[in-house]
Amino acid sequence: MIKFSINKALFLQALTATKRAIASKNAIPVLSTIKIVVLDKAITLTGSNGQISIENTIPVSNENAGLLITSTGSILLEANFFINIVSSLPDVTLDFEEIAHHQVVLTSGKSEITLKGKDVDLYPRLQEVATESPLVLETKLLKSIIAETAFAASLQESRPILTGVHMVLSNHKEYKAVATDSHRMSQRKITLENVASDFDVVIPSKSLREFSAVFTDDVEKVEVFFSASQILFRSEHISFYTRLLEGNYPDTDRLLTSNFETEVVFTTASLRSAMERAHLISNATQNGTVKLEILGNSVSAHVNSPEVGKVNEELDTLSISGNDLTISFNPTYLIEALKALKSETVVVRFISPVRPFTLTPGDDSENFIQLITPVRTN
Amino acid sequence: MIKFSINKALFLQALTATKRAIASKNAIPVLSTIKIVVLDKAITLTGSNGQISIENTIPVSNENAGLLITSTGSILLEANFFINIVSSLPDVTLDFEEIAHHQVVLTSGKSEITLKGKDVDLYPRLQEVATESPLVLETKLLKSIIAETAFAASLQESRPILTGVHMVLSNHKEYKAVATDSHRMSQRKITLENVASDFDVVIPSKSLREFSAVFTDDVEKVEVFFSASQILFRSEHISFYTRLLEGNYPDTDRLLTSNFETEVVFTTASLRSAMERAHLISNATQNGTVKLEILGNSVSAHVNSPEVGKVNEELDTLSISGNDLTISFNPTYLIEALKALKSETVVVRFISPVRPFTLTPGDDSENFIQLITPVRTN
Repeated sequence: MIKFSINKALFLQALTATKRAIASKNAIPVLSTIKIVVLDKAITLTGSNGQISIENTIPVSNENAGLLITSTGSILLEANFFINIVSSLPDVTLDFEEIAHHQVVLTSGKSEITLKGKDVDLYPRLQEVATESPLVLETKLLKSIIAETAFAASLQESRPILTGVHMVLSNHKEYKAVATDSHRMSQRKITLENVASDFDVVIPSKSLREFSAVFTDDVEKVEVFFSASQILFRSEHISFYTRLLEGNYPDTDRLLTSNFETEVVFTTASLRSAMERAHLISNATQNGTVKLEILGNSVSAHVNSPEVGKVNEELDTLSISGNDLTISFNPTYLIEALKALKSETVVVRFISPVRPFTLTPGDDSENFIQLITPVRTN
Repeated sequence: MIKFSINKALFLQALTATKRAIASKNAIPVLSTIKIVVLDKAITLTGSNGQISIENTIPVSNENAGLLITSTGSILLEANFFINIVSSLPDVTLDFEEIAHHQVVLTSGKSEITLKGKDVDLYPRLQEVATESPLVLETKLLKSIIAETAFAASLQESRPILTGVHMVLSNHKEYKAVATDSHRMSQRKITLENVASDFDVVIPSKSLREFSAVFTDDVEKVEVFFSASQILFRSEHISFYTRLLEGNYPDTDRLLTSNFETEVVFTTASLRSAMERAHLISNATQNGTVKLEILGNSVSAHVNSPEVGKVNEELDTLSISGNDLTISFNPTYLIEALKALKSETVVVRFISPVRPFTLTPGDDSENFIQLITPVRTN
């Protein structure tokens, strides 16, 4: 029967990080609990929503944890409830003791709280991933790739494969991440070094966003392990599992061509704020598009929503070259594309009013490209 | 037809303050608009939800406003939409011009946005309050009285009069504010000076909470005016109207007696955190009460929720006197009462397990008293 004492603040931090995997409502009731496994040298906290699972380990060797394990064991406790209780305790440390079958007493200062738990055998077995020959990535780099691509994935379950980010490694070094919802696409390439095995996986974009929230910036590197149906991201104390999406990801390379007829360079921030104004008005109608007019030396944006109003605006540009062109599109896609760009300037290249246009950062035209499909208007 | 130019940031601030009166959904559609009246020397913005109304005046004399009025007039504009548009404008100033019947053009930098408005005659007439012989109050004092009482008002419309705070002035100086939801009561008394007329009104607690949000701490004093059905709080630029509640407020004085059998002095913060722990567990059951046991020289708190767990805790006290006593109550009422107390210590006086107990600040037993009704348990 479990017995340990621990620093309250550190325990709470680990519980809160683990809770990120736990959905407040789940079709499988036991997944609203947190699994606490106490071994001789460490405590492991596990949370899962069936899609992603987080395992958080607090070792006795962590001096900030003030962890003293007297007796081992395991139990399930209602996650939200347990975390609220721990957070309310008066003292800096707490004693956790299993006093009877699935009954736990928390003592802290003069406060003594008894809680009912559940048998750990009720918890589903998380699929296992072999931890051999990891791919090691800088956490910061992986988070930046996620920020550049995951937003472009589809939110609709009608084509489940498009809700993921396609991550591919070829020739042991050419890494590519791409996401598309069929209206826009975002692709980041990077050259990695010393990678053992190529891979080709589709990771749910939702899981990747959770990854970015769970692995804080003080975690320098993560190890990545693959199995047929899962991927595991692991740092010193956190193991983050996510299910992979099954199926063939569409061939996105065929969408990218290098020819174009018109090229405009904008300041990223000024184009974004103009599109945000356009969106306020375009959003009020079903059509919801903004019209961009490139005429000689000027670019202007126009929205007309008969019921609420209209926008006419001349845009600031850094350079314009090529043919005149008028093209309509959903400004939301352009706003989100610009948000993902870290460079001060953006190069926009058009082929025709009915062909997708591309965005590349002003300082890197090779490795990061985005594509937006226009809307045909009459 | 309206024409003016104004500093965007200041205009936005006034619009946002006015919007507080505007409900996002209202049975009367025109109340989702903001009324803009442009006179020679000032602009007035009006928002209302039918219960409260806010009028915000921006005078030409306000140097921060950079207000230049070229032509006067009035119009209604969809509040949320208009505020979002103004907030998105690129330049520090904006030009507002009515170009045709209920059509407005906003120009700012290179951006030009046309909006449709409505005829000002569609806006309901707000009831008027005569602005003679005001009661002048310090804003800070009035906000502190609201914080001490409004929370104790009822949220249920079954007895509408109890959703208000009863404010009474007697003998031209004795001011009393009291609120009760029939389970607990909070009463603040203050002696005012030089007040012309006595009053006896019941103000919706919701309106008072809005008052506290609208009048920021830099507004030193407010003038208060009464009519039969409305009250007006007015500062230099803001007029805040609220409807009064009709009916007789129950006689709360008869609930207060000076005799008691047991007195305990607690540190406010430590009693509050003990009650917050108790509440986490008590909240899980229908009964939802905490039991306080005063036995000789100790006070302890107990909760037992058979399904989730229990709490047993010895409470820190500063002094205990009188008879032993066991009493049960809803810890939420005590938590909220303690939140309203600014003093470091609190004096709690009990008569019997079935009679309401009182709370007074350790540093002022005369002017601020709260009362909580126990729950009978077997």
